[in-house]
Amino acid sequence: MRKSIAIDMDGVIADEVVQLLTYYEKHYGIKIHPDELSGRSEENVVPEKDAYGKLSAIPGYFRSTPVMEGAVDAVKKLMESFDVYIVSAAMQYPHSLSQKLEWLGEHFPFISWRNIIFCGDKSIIGTDYMIDDHIKNLDHFKGKTIMFNAFHNVNHTHHQRANNWDEVLELMAKEV
Amino acid sequence: MRKSIAIDMDGVIADEVVQLLTYYEKHYGIKIHPDELSGRSEENVVPEKDAYGKLSAIPGYFRSTPVMEGAVDAVKKLMESFDVYIVSAAMQYPHSLSQKLEWLGEHFPFISWRNIIFCGDKSIIGTDYMIDDHIKNLDHFKGKTIMFNAFHNVNHTHHQRANNWDEVLELMAKEV
Repeated sequence: MRKSIAIDMDGVIADEVVQLLTYYEKHYGIKIHPDELSGRSEENVVPEKDAYGKLSAIPGYFRSTPVMEGAVDAVKKLMESFDVYIVSAAMQYPHSLSQKLEWLGEHFPFISWRNIIFCGDKSIIGTDYMIDDHIKNLDHFKGKTIMFNAFHNVNHTHHQRANNWDEVLELMAKEV
Repeated sequence: MRKSIAIDMDGVIADEVVQLLTYYEKHYGIKIHPDELSGRSEENVVPEKDAYGKLSAIPGYFRSTPVMEGAVDAVKKLMESFDVYIVSAAMQYPHSLSQKLEWLGEHFPFISWRNIIFCGDKSIIGTDYMIDDHIKNLDHFKGKTIMFNAFHNVNHTHHQRANNWDEVLELMAKEV
């Protein structure tokens, strides 16, 4: 039986850091380089605590997020050997749901609606593997985990890290 | 540790049969009593194969679906002993997502966004229990199942049947 993988959206197949910093510069006039964020918590990405809420509420924020480098080809490759599910903790931002569906339809049109999950917490996801950047999602997962590199997880070492999609493919090639 | 339950929306906490037959009578002029459906497949609820697609696409269809009798109090009761997740295979009908979220907000405001899942197929749901009317969802589930009575499942006997929410509570009382 083919094994299943839950793949996160923001920070894994969608480059939310680039999107947030682009919107932040545009609306707050301050340029931050992604490298400056290393080791910060998500709450401290920018000084204004309400910035993410305000910026992500702008119509089209989620819809126009850039694709993470290498994600499209890597997900296609994984689908040759695994059942791939896109699992996004989107429920906290109800207006993101339709944008995220449209985004997937544009950039990952080869993923069926059957394989898309929008949820709140991810503790009830029962796939064999999970690829996610958040330790809060990975820590409670019962299967094998891959922690996709992100500024907020650089100091955590208790999950297998992948720095990019090439490294994900290398790790998953051993699981086929 | 508290055990978790995945509870379906349509046909379990939302009375989709009443909604479909109400809309059908209004738009096609033909009255069908719910009892007439017993044993039919979902594809044969009404003669027109495209009726469900057309009717459910009318704005507000999902938003105005009546609540299943007894569901609100029963879900509240279950939440005293279990982690309850509402799991709806809503992804096939993208326009239903926001309506379903609003519907939950009105009728089940005590359910957190953390506990809502909109998905395609339910095979990756890893809760301890699943309450659902569709054998296609229950058959692949790894935990304990309760089949909520529906016209399309009356001839299936390989899951524990509950005819209504009182019977669900009786069955789940034994699991606490």
